[in-house]
Amino acid sequence: MHQMSDMQSCIDECLRCYQTCLGMAMNHCLEQGGKHVEPGHMRIMMACAEICRTSAHFMLIGTPHHKHTCRECAEICEECARSCEQVGDMQDCVDQCRRCAESCRRMAA
Amino acid sequence: MHQMSDMQSCIDECLRCYQTCLGMAMNHCLEQGGKHVEPGHMRIMMACAEICRTSAHFMLIGTPHHKHTCRECAEICEECARSCEQVGDMQDCVDQCRRCAESCRRMAA
Amino acid sequence: MHQMSDMQSCIDECLRCYQTCLGMAMNHCLEQGGKHVEPGHMRIMMACAEICRTSAHFMLIGTPHHKHTCRECAEICEECARSCEQVGDMQDCVDQCRRCAESCRRMAA
Amino acid sequence: MHQMSDMQSCIDECLRCYQTCLGMAMNHCLEQGGKHVEPGHMRIMMACAEICRTSAHFMLIGTPHHKHTCRECAEICEECARSCEQVGDMQDCVDQCRRCAESCRRMAA
Repeated sequence: MHQMSDMQSCIDECLRCYQTCLGMAMNHCLEQGGKHVEPGHMRIMMACAEICRTSAHFMLIGTPHHKHTCRECAEICEECARSCEQVGDMQDCVDQCRRCAESCRRMAA
Repeated sequence: MHQMSDMQSCIDECLRCYQTCLGMAMNHCLEQGGKHVEPGHMRIMMACAEICRTSAHFMLIGTPHHKHTCRECAEICEECARSCEQVGDMQDCVDQCRRCAESCRRMAA
Repeated sequence: MHQMSDMQSCIDECLRCYQTCLGMAMNHCLEQGGKHVEPGHMRIMMACAEICRTSAHFMLIGTPHHKHTCRECAEICEECARSCEQVGDMQDCVDQCRRCAESCRRMAA
Repeated sequence: MHQMSDMQSCIDECLRCYQTCLGMAMNHCLEQGGKHVEPGHMRIMMACAEICRTSAHFMLIGTPHHKHTCRECAEICEECARSCEQVGDMQDCVDQCRRCAESCRRMAA
């Protein structure tokens, strides 16, 4: 059983991760160019931003399907963190994705 | 292996189902009232609209994670179709949810 | 000229208002029924949630068009606050909509 | 006065333009690189995808504020069409943005 505060904290992490992924993709990555705009990296950044936004949306709607979107969110966040590590110079995004993944795994359990 | 035309046809079904669920929830259901605005029904309608939008988004981004969002989309569409059958007077939404579920299951396979 | 901290604070208010409007519509309003699920009220709640989400998105993308979405966001937030006052028992949403409107007006200036 | 079929046709154009902008940005532009991933171009492509999605959402909700989002959508579509012309090799996006802008202008009138 999750308490309301667990869910609010997961919504907060998802919306923070959404902000970090979208903001860094559209500013840091596009300005840096090179490996930062490699298709695979940009796609996982945008997919991560979208699933974080959707998982927060599902928790706010109050549907039990949030467990499934949170599970998928955790997987995509981990993959995004690994992509950011490989590209380098993206530690804020690595850290935020890992925090969000951890929070989403607890919510999906 | 999916062909491009399979994916485009799934994107089309998802965006049609998004339109049907959001449009009927915000117009037909709210105008009818009664069982149509019961929390469980409205929540599954809004969750269905959102996952359809997100699954289309993932296919357009071109990320392989679309298989997972499509699988979840198929499950939510089926649940939404059942809820619409129980509420009654929502046959368009029942039919569109079933078509989208079928298309998403093929995409998730 | 806006400083980065002004924009981050507007993104924060928009995402808080998105949470409040969507969360209260899908939980408080649907559970309460009656005036809370009147079509005009539910529509402005959902429109407010969406424009808040979009305005935050535009600021994160870093496009100068955020000024236009923030101006529209301020207008919709004010209308949503008035609708919540008329329905009653929605003071949290009234307050958050007013705070977001104020922040968006500054951003649109 | 708009007829329902005008609005459905504008929703269709917006969702087609959303698909074209997001799909071409995340696939064609990222694969091509060079001018195609210049920050200004990618930002207007993503802003265009988002405002098209939001304008369709507003029309589906049935809120009169769709006139304002459609007006903004028309402006962003025109700017996106010009950016695509300058980058070159993006005629599908130029054409779809112009069609959507024309439809949104009628809706905003």
